[in-house]
Amino acid sequence: MCGSDLHAYSHFIGIPSEEHPLTKRQAPLTLGHEFSGTVTEIGSDVTSLSVGDRVCIEPNIRCGECKECREGNYHLCRNSNAAFIGLADDGGFAEYCVLDEQYCHQIPDHMTLEQAALVEPTAVTYRAVDLAGVKPGDNVLVTGAGPIGLLTVLNARAAGANKIFVSDVSKERLKLANSFEFVKTLNPVEDDVIGEIMSATNGNGVDVALECAGVQPTFDTCLEAIKRTGTVCVVAIFAQNPEINAFASTVKEANIKFSLGYSNIYDRVIHLIASGQVPAEKVVTNKIKLDHIVEEGFELLNDKSQSKILVSSK
Amino acid sequence: MCGSDLHAYSHFIGIPSEEHPLTKRQAPLTLGHEFSGTVTEIGSDVTSLSVGDRVCIEPNIRCGECKECREGNYHLCRNSNAAFIGLADDGGFAEYCVLDEQYCHQIPDHMTLEQAALVEPTAVTYRAVDLAGVKPGDNVLVTGAGPIGLLTVLNARAAGANKIFVSDVSKERLKLANSFEFVKTLNPVEDDVIGEIMSATNGNGVDVALECAGVQPTFDTCLEAIKRTGTVCVVAIFAQNPEINAFASTVKEANIKFSLGYSNIYDRVIHLIASGQVPAEKVVTNKIKLDHIVEEGFELLNDKSQSKILVSSK
Repeated sequence: MCGSDLHAYSHFIGIPSEEHPLTKRQAPLTLGHEFSGTVTEIGSDVTSLSVGDRVCIEPNIRCGECKECREGNYHLCRNSNAAFIGLADDGGFAEYCVLDEQYCHQIPDHMTLEQAALVEPTAVTYRAVDLAGVKPGDNVLVTGAGPIGLLTVLNARAAGANKIFVSDVSKERLKLANSFEFVKTLNPVEDDVIGEIMSATNGNGVDVALECAGVQPTFDTCLEAIKRTGTVCVVAIFAQNPEINAFASTVKEANIKFSLGYSNIYDRVIHLIASGQVPAEKVVTNKIKLDHIVEEGFELLNDKSQSKILVSSK
Repeated sequence: MCGSDLHAYSHFIGIPSEEHPLTKRQAPLTLGHEFSGTVTEIGSDVTSLSVGDRVCIEPNIRCGECKECREGNYHLCRNSNAAFIGLADDGGFAEYCVLDEQYCHQIPDHMTLEQAALVEPTAVTYRAVDLAGVKPGDNVLVTGAGPIGLLTVLNARAAGANKIFVSDVSKERLKLANSFEFVKTLNPVEDDVIGEIMSATNGNGVDVALECAGVQPTFDTCLEAIKRTGTVCVVAIFAQNPEINAFASTVKEANIKFSLGYSNIYDRVIHLIASGQVPAEKVVTNKIKLDHIVEEGFELLNDKSQSKILVSSK
């Protein structure tokens, strides 16, 4: 389950209210875009998969024909407009799902289906860390310790980040973050976040801040926390447009990048999780059955005590 | 004369009200940071200059010792805090000026002192175009056709930009911009700026937008005008912080960069102007004498009918 599922469940956000041009679907449909499974049947034209193969799903729908698709940026497909399987077409909260083979990636034998279900959010965060340009030895701040924030932390570490700070106002979320030994957790309610970061980085600030909370105070914190010439990468979706401190950004020559989804990285993310370099399974806080998804899933996610909830169809 | 001189003249912006840590100076002092001249006398330790050399001045004050200076980013010197000769120390609106030799760059024989006085603002815009990553064949939007906007246009052209759009609400400024034959001028009061840009770029938008106006509507225009994965480079100083359309930026994976000054590029800018590749003198609309700088300079600049005014000390 993803925060986007919750937005779709509570407010229909992301679900087409009119027929989507590519999927020809609209509400109601089956949610679930972070999922894995076993191939039980294949169409006559399928060449890359066989019955019994275990796969994880890359759910970003693309036309394959527009300029962005042709240039390899199919996550920015202008005919898809950020449509996903599980939001603009039937998704994974079901026993069976029919998919075009291009959306299915085979996983190695030693990878579990639970790990495979985590490839999608891990790909989002791998991409953000990559776009932000995190290099070995960089000091990094992640604002927001929800599942995306925590997976961002794990990817930043895999990219070689040295000191990683993560901030959140939720003590439960910070507790989980604290279980990653290389992380320094900060709670703006109790801690001087900028003071702590500056004092731990010789007054320079972090090289990169990854904004995974999506509110004005965390956006401001990211800009304050970066060094001169540093980068803020926005991973979160903002409910309200933030204001940007232009003078501070100019004096620092700040870079602000916005990250959306991913393309062409699924196989490497699969192997980073399978090899243990990105132990994505650490962000799982609960496992439930599909039959109980409303009360044990959506309603529980709403109170933010959980990080990632895994749902099995049986 | 520069817009910053006007801000300093009208509101004391940029002039230290307390002793500056590096220059040990504060108001009152002599303005003027875009200037050139002839060496009339040298100190006993000066090795790189002789009497009679013609020079242009690189006015950004630096300590030479902090992390930024040591890394070559002396325009971000943390002890200078963006202090300039002519704002935080005596500058060029004078017959004579005493300077450390490191701030003086010799100019070639075939370059005029008038061209040399334009190196400073040209360096600002060269740097912005470079930071924004303008490549040959790129389509570019420049918002604001003041001197910085026009010099940005010239630098974008020198960097190989193909279609260059420039927008402004001032007909006088657009008229000057129109004299550059490769430019398409747009006036948001009369034209559908985004519609025109989209129709001229196959619906893609520009690769790079350079924001040289510093107000919310032009910032919004830049974000709307760029292609997916495009870059907005902020060159202007904003009087009020802009709001940023976060969703639109995410869906495009926009890059927003802030540019401040320059470092290590003066010699190349000198040669770009001297060779005619960046004909900076085209932005000059008036030449006056120092004795008349108040009535024919500051007061005239205030009404925005002028672009760049050159002042001679004799």
